[in-house]
Amino acid sequence: MKEKASQFAPANIALIKYWGKRQSPLNLPVTSSLSVSLPLGTHTTLSLTSDKDMIFLNGNEQSPESSFAMRLSAFLDPFRPPNTYFRVDTKNEIPTSAGLASSSSGFAALVLALNDLFEWNLSQKELSILARQGSGSACRSIYKGFVEWHKGVQDDGKDSYAEPVPSQMQDLCIGLWMVSDKEKPIDSRRAMIQTVETSPLYAAWPDTVASDLAQMKKALSENDFLLLGKVAEENALAMHATMMAAKPAILYWLPESVAALHKIWSLRKEGLNLFFTMDAGPNLKLLFLKKDAATVKSLLPNLQLLDVVAKPQHPNLLPN
Amino acid sequence: MKEKASQFAPANIALIKYWGKRQSPLNLPVTSSLSVSLPLGTHTTLSLTSDKDMIFLNGNEQSPESSFAMRLSAFLDPFRPPNTYFRVDTKNEIPTSAGLASSSSGFAALVLALNDLFEWNLSQKELSILARQGSGSACRSIYKGFVEWHKGVQDDGKDSYAEPVPSQMQDLCIGLWMVSDKEKPIDSRRAMIQTVETSPLYAAWPDTVASDLAQMKKALSENDFLLLGKVAEENALAMHATMMAAKPAILYWLPESVAALHKIWSLRKEGLNLFFTMDAGPNLKLLFLKKDAATVKSLLPNLQLLDVVAKPQHPNLLPN
Repeated sequence: MKEKASQFAPANIALIKYWGKRQSPLNLPVTSSLSVSLPLGTHTTLSLTSDKDMIFLNGNEQSPESSFAMRLSAFLDPFRPPNTYFRVDTKNEIPTSAGLASSSSGFAALVLALNDLFEWNLSQKELSILARQGSGSACRSIYKGFVEWHKGVQDDGKDSYAEPVPSQMQDLCIGLWMVSDKEKPIDSRRAMIQTVETSPLYAAWPDTVASDLAQMKKALSENDFLLLGKVAEENALAMHATMMAAKPAILYWLPESVAALHKIWSLRKEGLNLFFTMDAGPNLKLLFLKKDAATVKSLLPNLQLLDVVAKPQHPNLLPN
Repeated sequence: MKEKASQFAPANIALIKYWGKRQSPLNLPVTSSLSVSLPLGTHTTLSLTSDKDMIFLNGNEQSPESSFAMRLSAFLDPFRPPNTYFRVDTKNEIPTSAGLASSSSGFAALVLALNDLFEWNLSQKELSILARQGSGSACRSIYKGFVEWHKGVQDDGKDSYAEPVPSQMQDLCIGLWMVSDKEKPIDSRRAMIQTVETSPLYAAWPDTVASDLAQMKKALSENDFLLLGKVAEENALAMHATMMAAKPAILYWLPESVAALHKIWSLRKEGLNLFFTMDAGPNLKLLFLKKDAATVKSLLPNLQLLDVVAKPQHPNLLPN
């Protein structure tokens, strides 16, 4: 093993959402999902130490009683040599408040760092399965580009992992439209459970995803941005719809979120090819093509441009 | 027959929504629904005339080419004696812009006036079936109080009619919270069709209604206002959720609507027993008890108090 290992994993934005677990301890999902990785993500440095786990987030040591430190220490337990502790130094390039699921890139980077530190030489599939056990969508953050998480059917989760999706998509841009950085009224893990358990509309979600996923893969293989945008938007709206029908209702939308939706639809009516997706929060992630980036930026000056995903990717040339 | 007939029918607010037709020409619904009638509604005076139909809305003669006049004339055609025309004088007590489905009280009042003019002496059930053919939810506006529209299963619609629901509910108040009187982006008839045809979540709607309807009848029979409010709110949110997942999405909510939802939830958290329902539009109808009316009015000064529905109603004493 090495003395120290440093690894990076990208944040990812789901175009077809992961919403609902069929089994909780292993984070096995009800449906497959599909995401695109960002160039921004999490850098994690891992080494062994004695005495106790030391966990740093963006340079600040976290109390062992903090939920952040407890979740990491619990995840590391099975890999811990006897009487040994970890020093974890993790830096998020995207602020947690942006709702970009830092736990995804965080657990992916941690797993990559473990693999490096102990020189396991695990396959990407094995790394993806490990990351999934830390946080479901972390299994997608093992890869760059477009990534599908196969839901799997086994109880042990060995067929529930992510891998890159062949894509001809070019010049996809993503922009973050923050309408609020206030804390969410309910965290996404709890919201997911509440939706599965109480929303009468959730019964229709698995079929919705199956259909949306097939369309999304078609969009990627045909470089059809309009289809990608349409399906991503519909899928996100359907996810939020299942939440609104939960009991009690879960509504992450703020007035500003709805104003943003109407604004996007109105710009699209005027001919701009602009779409959105939304995760479990009030903020929007906009999808558009590179050629429209300047226009979008001028119309929505507060937009944070996250990335241009430009290159086609091939199934026999898995990006990493 | 009489020379002239004048009748009134109440507007109604659905607590369990009518959303989706199984057959269009006869307005046969996918699910049953349940409403409460308001004291406000439509007054219609009907007489025969020669030459041409003359249709007045709130005192103003409507052009025969207007959709309003054409819809009424078409509805009246089957009842027209040879070479005879109708003069219809209809007055809505609630402004159409309030989104209180004036077509419901309108067609109910028209059917009651026809029955009176021709002295048909139809039963309330027969009147309800006739009114339904003009506008689905008009079948509920034949009655005062709480009313259930049985969806029926027959193709001829003879088992799809409304009747009063036994109720012990006391002191129910309704308030209208207008957040916008702008025209809707899509009328509710088209929105309904689009949802049924394209929303993947609509598949779960019929079971949702069946369960909500049973709960609502329980609330009425046990005078359980908290259950009534909870179920009405959940049912309205589920209906809007089915729309949001339509393709393209249908979102009647404005930023102000979402602000209103959050406000109501926040007042409820503080202990006020306040609930809402929403129809196919951006405005809210609030539900609360008479004892809280002054508090509600002071907290929401723009609220229009529509009514107090106070008296229990018994199945063997059908209100009319």
